[in-house]
Amino acid sequence: MWKEEDNKLKADFTFSNFSEAFAFMTSVAIAAEKANHHPNWSNVYNKVSFELCTHDASNTVTQKDEDLAKVIDKIYQRYK
Amino acid sequence: MWKEEDNKLKADFTFSNFSEAFAFMTSVAIAAEKANHHPNWSNVYNKVSFELCTHDASNTVTQKDEDLAKVIDKIYQRYK
Amino acid sequence: MWKEEDNKLKADFTFSNFSEAFAFMTSVAIAAEKANHHPNWSNVYNKVSFELCTHDASNTVTQKDEDLAKVIDKIYQRYK
Amino acid sequence: MWKEEDNKLKADFTFSNFSEAFAFMTSVAIAAEKANHHPNWSNVYNKVSFELCTHDASNTVTQKDEDLAKVIDKIYQRYK
Repeated sequence: MWKEEDNKLKADFTFSNFSEAFAFMTSVAIAAEKANHHPNWSNVYNKVSFELCTHDASNTVTQKDEDLAKVIDKIYQRYK
Repeated sequence: MWKEEDNKLKADFTFSNFSEAFAFMTSVAIAAEKANHHPNWSNVYNKVSFELCTHDASNTVTQKDEDLAKVIDKIYQRYK
Repeated sequence: MWKEEDNKLKADFTFSNFSEAFAFMTSVAIAAEKANHHPNWSNVYNKVSFELCTHDASNTVTQKDEDLAKVIDKIYQRYK
Repeated sequence: MWKEEDNKLKADFTFSNFSEAFAFMTSVAIAAEKANHHPNWSNVYNKVSFELCTHDASNTVTQKDEDLAKVIDKIYQRYK
């Protein structure tokens, strides 16, 4: 689901409605703060899009981004 | 899952972990504010407990509580 | 703080940290669902950006967007 | 604001409305998961109540609870 493009890990996720999308975002927010690695993400209604990169590594994709992508995928299992 | 007791609608819900419990709570919070009817609820780790009653109706169970209970059940479907 | 550009109402908000930015987002999510009008928004760490338009009105700015912008401003008062 | 009673650290917090109370709760949820120490808490409309204790220490108050109480107080500064 994730693809690397322009030095970013990108993925889009779709939900039943806004409420589910934001519940998912809440779990991702909790996980991101726990990992101290935060996504660049956007939402419109039932869609959530990510672009992950590491600012401290000249905005390239690092292991931190790969790890966060895995956590996001795991959270998404509940909603798909 | 809901039982009426002491003029309250009560139910307990269990989740995989804290993050899922709080994601569920976020969807319930959105629904409660939308309905302008808010729960008396508590959480500890992966458990969320509700006691629903209507303050404006002398703290008895009303249709508003029945409706909120149904919405909560519907949100919970995603997590069980 | 809001400017109209490309048929969208746009604004950026800055917070002390990610946790505050996401708390603000949670209040905005609750308000947006209540109004049944949802933002196109993005977040990275302590910044939240909005682009508001109305899909049902050929993606132009309508009163719904003006109203949501006012609600967002009011929520932001707490955080600035 | 916190008092120790029945081997628990207890405190109550009041907000302008439900939306602010739940925004505060979201920041507390993020902090609790980060600390891997979760509160026993309840909410009704604009009130949030905590009872903190440590399950792994025979349900007594430990340094983990003192630390979480401080974090909660710090988050609350924004809302009072």
